Amino acid sequence: MAMVCLSDFEAYAKKYLPKIAWDYFAAGADDCTTRDENILAYKRIRFRPRMLRNVSVMDIRTKILGMEISFPVGIAPTGFHQLAWPDGEKSTARAARAMNTCYIASTYSTCTLEEISAAAPGGLRWFQLYVHRNRAASQQLVQRAEALGFQGLVLTADLPYTGKRRDDVRNGFRLPPHMKLKNLEQAFEVCKMSPLDPSVTWNDIYWLRSLTRLPIIIKGILTREDAELAVRHGVQGIIVSNHGGRQLDEGPATIDALVEVVEAVRGRVEVYVDGGIRKGSDVLKALALGAKCVFIGRPALWGLAYKGEEGLQDVLRILQDEFRLSMALAGCASVSEIGQHLVQFSKL
Amino acid sequence: MAMVCLSDFEAYAKKYLPKIAWDYFAAGADDCTTRDENILAYKRIRFRPRMLRNVSVMDIRTKILGMEISFPVGIAPTGFHQLAWPDGEKSTARAARAMNTCYIASTYSTCTLEEISAAAPGGLRWFQLYVHRNRAASQQLVQRAEALGFQGLVLTADLPYTGKRRDDVRNGFRLPPHMKLKNLEQAFEVCKMSPLDPSVTWNDIYWLRSLTRLPIIIKGILTREDAELAVRHGVQGIIVSNHGGRQLDEGPATIDALVEVVEAVRGRVEVYVDGGIRKGSDVLKALALGAKCVFIGRPALWGLAYKGEEGLQDVLRILQDEFRLSMALAGCASVSEIGQHLVQFSKL
Amino acid sequence: MAMVCLSDFEAYAKKYLPKIAWDYFAAGADDCTTRDENILAYKRIRFRPRMLRNVSVMDIRTKILGMEISFPVGIAPTGFHQLAWPDGEKSTARAARAMNTCYIASTYSTCTLEEISAAAPGGLRWFQLYVHRNRAASQQLVQRAEALGFQGLVLTADLPYTGKRRDDVRNGFRLPPHMKLKNLEQAFEVCKMSPLDPSVTWNDIYWLRSLTRLPIIIKGILTREDAELAVRHGVQGIIVSNHGGRQLDEGPATIDALVEVVEAVRGRVEVYVDGGIRKGSDVLKALALGAKCVFIGRPALWGLAYKGEEGLQDVLRILQDEFRLSMALAGCASVSEIGQHLVQFSKL
Amino acid sequence: MAMVCLSDFEAYAKKYLPKIAWDYFAAGADDCTTRDENILAYKRIRFRPRMLRNVSVMDIRTKILGMEISFPVGIAPTGFHQLAWPDGEKSTARAARAMNTCYIASTYSTCTLEEISAAAPGGLRWFQLYVHRNRAASQQLVQRAEALGFQGLVLTADLPYTGKRRDDVRNGFRLPPHMKLKNLEQAFEVCKMSPLDPSVTWNDIYWLRSLTRLPIIIKGILTREDAELAVRHGVQGIIVSNHGGRQLDEGPATIDALVEVVEAVRGRVEVYVDGGIRKGSDVLKALALGAKCVFIGRPALWGLAYKGEEGLQDVLRILQDEFRLSMALAGCASVSEIGQHLVQFSKL
Repeated sequence: MAMVCLSDFEAYAKKYLPKIAWDYFAAGADDCTTRDENILAYKRIRFRPRMLRNVSVMDIRTKILGMEISFPVGIAPTGFHQLAWPDGEKSTARAARAMNTCYIASTYSTCTLEEISAAAPGGLRWFQLYVHRNRAASQQLVQRAEALGFQGLVLTADLPYTGKRRDDVRNGFRLPPHMKLKNLEQAFEVCKMSPLDPSVTWNDIYWLRSLTRLPIIIKGILTREDAELAVRHGVQGIIVSNHGGRQLDEGPATIDALVEVVEAVRGRVEVYVDGGIRKGSDVLKALALGAKCVFIGRPALWGLAYKGEEGLQDVLRILQDEFRLSMALAGCASVSEIGQHLVQFSKL
Repeated sequence: MAMVCLSDFEAYAKKYLPKIAWDYFAAGADDCTTRDENILAYKRIRFRPRMLRNVSVMDIRTKILGMEISFPVGIAPTGFHQLAWPDGEKSTARAARAMNTCYIASTYSTCTLEEISAAAPGGLRWFQLYVHRNRAASQQLVQRAEALGFQGLVLTADLPYTGKRRDDVRNGFRLPPHMKLKNLEQAFEVCKMSPLDPSVTWNDIYWLRSLTRLPIIIKGILTREDAELAVRHGVQGIIVSNHGGRQLDEGPATIDALVEVVEAVRGRVEVYVDGGIRKGSDVLKALALGAKCVFIGRPALWGLAYKGEEGLQDVLRILQDEFRLSMALAGCASVSEIGQHLVQFSKL
Repeated sequence: MAMVCLSDFEAYAKKYLPKIAWDYFAAGADDCTTRDENILAYKRIRFRPRMLRNVSVMDIRTKILGMEISFPVGIAPTGFHQLAWPDGEKSTARAARAMNTCYIASTYSTCTLEEISAAAPGGLRWFQLYVHRNRAASQQLVQRAEALGFQGLVLTADLPYTGKRRDDVRNGFRLPPHMKLKNLEQAFEVCKMSPLDPSVTWNDIYWLRSLTRLPIIIKGILTREDAELAVRHGVQGIIVSNHGGRQLDEGPATIDALVEVVEAVRGRVEVYVDGGIRKGSDVLKALALGAKCVFIGRPALWGLAYKGEEGLQDVLRILQDEFRLSMALAGCASVSEIGQHLVQFSKL
Repeated sequence: MAMVCLSDFEAYAKKYLPKIAWDYFAAGADDCTTRDENILAYKRIRFRPRMLRNVSVMDIRTKILGMEISFPVGIAPTGFHQLAWPDGEKSTARAARAMNTCYIASTYSTCTLEEISAAAPGGLRWFQLYVHRNRAASQQLVQRAEALGFQGLVLTADLPYTGKRRDDVRNGFRLPPHMKLKNLEQAFEVCKMSPLDPSVTWNDIYWLRSLTRLPIIIKGILTREDAELAVRHGVQGIIVSNHGGRQLDEGPATIDALVEVVEAVRGRVEVYVDGGIRKGSDVLKALALGAKCVFIGRPALWGLAYKGEEGLQDVLRILQDEFRLSMALAGCASVSEIGQHLVQFSKL
């Protein structure tokens, strides 16, 4: 079977992953409306392609928080990579470094931050944090990440409690006994998520700021009001995200929310987006609407499930080729030429 | 089979109820467009969830007409509960009391008001009235309900004649011989509904007022004009309802009509809504759009069909958990924080 | 099988008619988009039902061009009724008279006007005319109709040539040898339609006027411009029609065009509509949007196919009952209470 | 099997062509959204047909760049006609001449321009050019075409690189060894398309102008900005095209882009459109929205696949008959009567 586009990797993963793992990765909250809307919303955006603009030399590099990446697609934080591939997050780190892009490692990794760092020294990595009731544990994690050379701290804001994912409830999902949330001191029940602190507020950004010199990126923002609050509380970046549709069902698709957030932010901090990216042209749309970079979640897991590090590189390479081709066909030779004039919202 | 969400109860009821009972409960008028629209309309409403708002302590209680209930979901009046479970409305009353919420008992109950009261003393109950040609019979019912401690009188306004429910016609639906409309003096043909009085007008509100000190809630209002008339005629509450899509097909979905009614009422009386509630997040949407409380019809019957009183409690508990989680994920710690800013209508 | 709604008759006809006859009656032009839109457009109209308005005494009678009919549904002109039932248009005439409504007999009847008249003396009938190249033949037809007591002359304006109905081409549709277009002097090839005159213009209304004292109703108008021309040329009525979607595909649904035509006509002549009526509530919608009466085409043929005169009466009786019930549930006790306030166009 | 409409030819071609050839002709870029939208967008346009306008004498001729054609449908440039029929472009040329319309021969023909010319002397033909890195090769092609009597030069602007057509990648599509791109000096790999020059800009129009006295038509314009640039750079015509949805996926449907381009051009040059034409009424819609003529791509190939020259004539004749009938049913007796008043965009 030729791996031509990301759907091929999805089909492979659905076929070869254990059902309980596939279901966990695929899960959306409740009716999965938002999960699916993330994808559908891209289809409602139409390009306005420009012709005859000399696209013989293409430059698809960009920078996020000052660091150059080979193209504007990074790896979103997702948990439990060993469910997809034995080497887990170590493979993810290697693939991201090989493709010269950014990998956001999750608190819920099945490898330690130290293992991740050692697997791909020198790679550009950010660390994603869930704030726990035990604030000392969180502090320790942040400081370990900084010491290991992670270059950004991503605070997830949309998970005070875990969303209701029906299949996980039906499956009684939990990690197999041989996998551990290695970055957390004490083992705990994943599904109950009791260690997460639902009392976190905007003031906790100041607490985080006091722990680390790393730039803070807030993930899970969907409204102009929260975007404004994020800027005012001094974050360096915003990831527009609905957690892949796994938290509150029937919120906005992220590409729709991106427009609102970018407008509110007015360039004061960088804005990124995740959710629903399935083609290189989706990346082009997100950039045209103001994202500095996008992050992929499930497609990265499909790549891992296919062939580990190599499979994830395949996924990234396909996105890269598609992105470059879309840019050229839309008349842009470099990322700096991408702008809102390239797109319009379909009336349908 | 795990009962994870309300659809599970629906599937169970469809499988285990006698077809004629399932068809009767499921029936909508004509093409069932409005019945289905009630559900679809919720899906067109999108949340605008807010982050980092300290949702560690959740308070989901509310009050209707001054009485506290454990969460803003009551039991709508539906007929013939013995078709779903042998104990009929007695089980319904017990489940509602156990969950500390309000149960609106129907004129077409298969238990007497006395049996319902005795089954769950002290529960919060309203009585739903169809006005009959024999006004003395109606008067007697109202006064019995008041004497038994029912705390509200719900006048159904949308059934001057019974809607055309094709499956009921095909099935020749009628109650099995061992079930009776026990609250009505003389037995009569349910399907012909001849005892109902189609000459009822707004002035009959004054007649009802003269019979009882109970607050009067009018059920079946769908337009701003009728909402204004209801307020002017002195009702205490309005239930926006299209009778589950069983009366005039192709009227508005209730959640759409709610917006119009709430706007017209301008806070002068409480407004409730029924129809199409299938998830806790639907409750959150209804409250965001101005409903004080919602009422569930068919899902309550599915719960009864599953395990009687216990099954209905399961249904209510799932809604309660989902409602609490939706609130938290949308950034609301108490019902008073819910407002219109939480939602927007999808353009699609 | 119980005949509960019009779809039951459609299913029956599809099952029992010869395929070539079913295909002919069912046919739409090209992709059948307009044929299907006629029905779908009704579903996009929502009622705004009013409550508590004393609907104990219902009056569903109306008048068209001064003649009372039992309810605002007549029989549209369709050809070849013998394809549906041996007695053909004689049965149609009898059913229409029995139900006290108006039957528009087609030029392409398989019974003579004399047979139709004799079958149901005293029934309210209009005669539908296609203008032929042989104007003398048309003149003779008009004058025969007038002499036989037909009370209106319906000029079909939308068939200068026959639309392209793919199934008829594939089937090589033509009348069976034992059926004849008895009202036309010389037999001719139906599918070629060569005798029709495509040079007819608005001035020919004056020519028709000179032939007869009957009121002239023009059928096939879809735009405000043509509605204005019709009024100026002195017609007494307009039937908004797209010939059941059998002529130009992808024109407007008739219920949508009705709005435009009614607005242009401003009450100067009566406006009727055909196409897509499948339920009593469709009739109510059409009247709410300004139609004086609707006409049914295919449903009448399904009725004939079911049981001839009796089957057509069944169809009319169902529509009558549904119309009366819809009116009552919308809060109207008589046709004069129906108005635009009853409906709104769905945004979807 | 009767060949009644263009879909019949499509079904035939799908059944009888080798899969690899069918896939190549049918292919769209990525998800094929734009390919399919080209067709769907026509369905969202509604006619406003006018009645009683004397359509007894129909004149469907038009002129493009001063040359009369029998009706406003020409043959769009598509490659590799020998994949559809052994005689390839020679058959196409003969059919176009027989039907008295214009054929745009592709750079990627499997017959030489000389063979095409000799096959149908005197036919109206334009030559479609891809600019190659080897500019001398392009110059030679242009001058050969002019010398052979081609009467227009069509510059394709939307293919700096070849779009990603998944099926072609999966199939490893390439021409069979016995077919050649005979108009190109040196054989080369079709799929890599390396000879194409992605550095072409608007200034190259001046270079082309210096090579030939032929009118220059630019193909692939989708925005008002590019339409304005095309006019300013002195082209004689614009073909609104998205390459049949084979280049950038999720750009606009061509019939939607036509509106924008026609508005920008304000009559300064002729505007044509290709993509999605499947019925004569689509042609009428395109003309109503300002196109001077349309061009068909895939339907021409289906005609070839059916019966070569004869099959393509069948396709053209069906379109011609349907176009004439649509015009008549819309109330237009000649092409000059077609205008924007005939159409409206459906709100759905």
